Order: sequence, then structure tokens, then C-alpha cells
Amino acid sequence: MHRSKLAAALVDVPAEVFDREVTFWSGVLGREPEDVSENPEYRDFGQTVPGFQLMLQRVDDTPRVHLDIETDDIEAEVERLEALGAQRVRQVRSWWVMRDPAGLPFCVVRIQTGELFEEQATSWE
Amino acid sequence: MHRSKLAAALVDVPAEVFDREVTFWSGVLGREPEDVSENPEYRDFGQTVPGFQLMLQRVDDTPRVHLDIETDDIEAEVERLEALGAQRVRQVRSWWVMRDPAGLPFCVVRIQTGELFEEQATSWE
Repeated sequence: MHRSKLAAALVDVPAEVFDREVTFWSGVLGREPEDVSENPEYRDFGQTVPGFQLMLQRVDDTPRVHLDIETDDIEAEVERLEALGAQRVRQVRSWWVMRDPAGLPFCVVRIQTGELFEEQATSWE
Repeated sequence: MHRSKLAAALVDVPAEVFDREVTFWSGVLGREPEDVSENPEYRDFGQTVPGFQLMLQRVDDTPRVHLDIETDDIEAEVERLEALGAQRVRQVRSWWVMRDPAGLPFCVVRIQTGELFEEQATSWE
């Protein structure tokens, strides 16, 4: 048995618009982002809705939004999602980048929302 | 004074992968989507996190994820976001499609999350 839930949206933008984009989304949400110490390419706006984070990420690619799914067992969740039709793209540190059937990237990550994960996650047999 | 908050993520995919994508995300979340009566191009997975919806939308465009911001005053919120650097793209029924400084589309919509809007929204002077 493992659990998972939708955890975050990531706004991925290239370096040349990253600072402007951080300022914009800070204004949208009315809150300052925090750095993510081990991942300097991120800015974390925290749980803008309880149990759901918004983050910005600096990428070497065209802008996009992607979703993160958090889980207490990454390998079990990746295998569950493969069986549903997702594909593994690459492992990055503790998480997996996958693609959904339409080709959209998303990530399977460790628990990020703390006690709200316990409240909100779905259990899979 | 008006209020707004992050309300939803929309997974936008073209017609040829729409049904497969609906089935995939239904499996990811472990819940069935509902039709949206006045908008047949949508499937609504509801608030997968309390106060945050996930929906799928059939589009004539390449796949993407976009975010929705809900508000009790669409014109006031659109003007606030323009002042922060967003641009109006087009009005669709009750909502506005806008672009952020990186060119990413997002929508400003009417209140969608009911009483959780009251709890979670930020007030703007």
C-alpha cells in the first residue's frame, strides 16, 4: 500500500525572464517566494492553497506549467502511473520526471505538503 | 476591495488524445470526472485538494497545463494583473484569458471553489 496526491504546480521559465516572472507571480499571490536551498533554480511560494504549492523553476527550455504528484513511495507510484499510460523520462535527484499520454511532463516527488499529505492523499493497494 | 486566489489547473489537450488523457488523469487521481454542462469541452475532477480543482479541456492547440485565478470581481482582478505585467488575450464567456510576462496563458474566472474561496482568498485594496 502506498499513497499519493496532487502537490504542486511549477511555472518553468528560461533564465532571461525568470526574475520578472518571480516578481509577477509574487504580485499575483501577494506573497514573497522562498529559496529552495538545495535547488537554487527554484523559488517556492509555498502552499497558496493548503496542500497545494506553487513554485517557479528556471529551465533551459520554452516556458510551461507542469504538475507534481507527491507520494510516500516514489518507485511504487511511478510503476502505478506507468501502468496507467505514463512514461518515465528521467530521474533527477529524489524524483522522477514522467510524461502523460499527451506528452506533457510531470514529476513524481517525495512528500512536500507535510501533515496535509496525511489528510488529503489517496491510498493505492 | 476585491479578492482572488489560485483556483485550478487545466490540462489542455487536442481532441485526438482527449479521451485517453481523461482516462489517465482519472486513474492518477482515483476519481471520475464530471461533465461541465455549459462547457462540453471540459471534464472536471473537482477539488482534488480542498480549494484547488483539476480539469481537462479539449483544445485546438498543442498540449499544455494552464492555471486559473478565481475572483469576486473579474474586471478589477484583470486590471490588477495588467498592472503587474500580464496582458489580456481575449474574453471568453464570463472569463478572461491573459498571458503572464513569460507568455504563458492563464485565466481569470468567477468564484469556483465556493466557501473555500471565502477562507483562502487574498483581499486587494
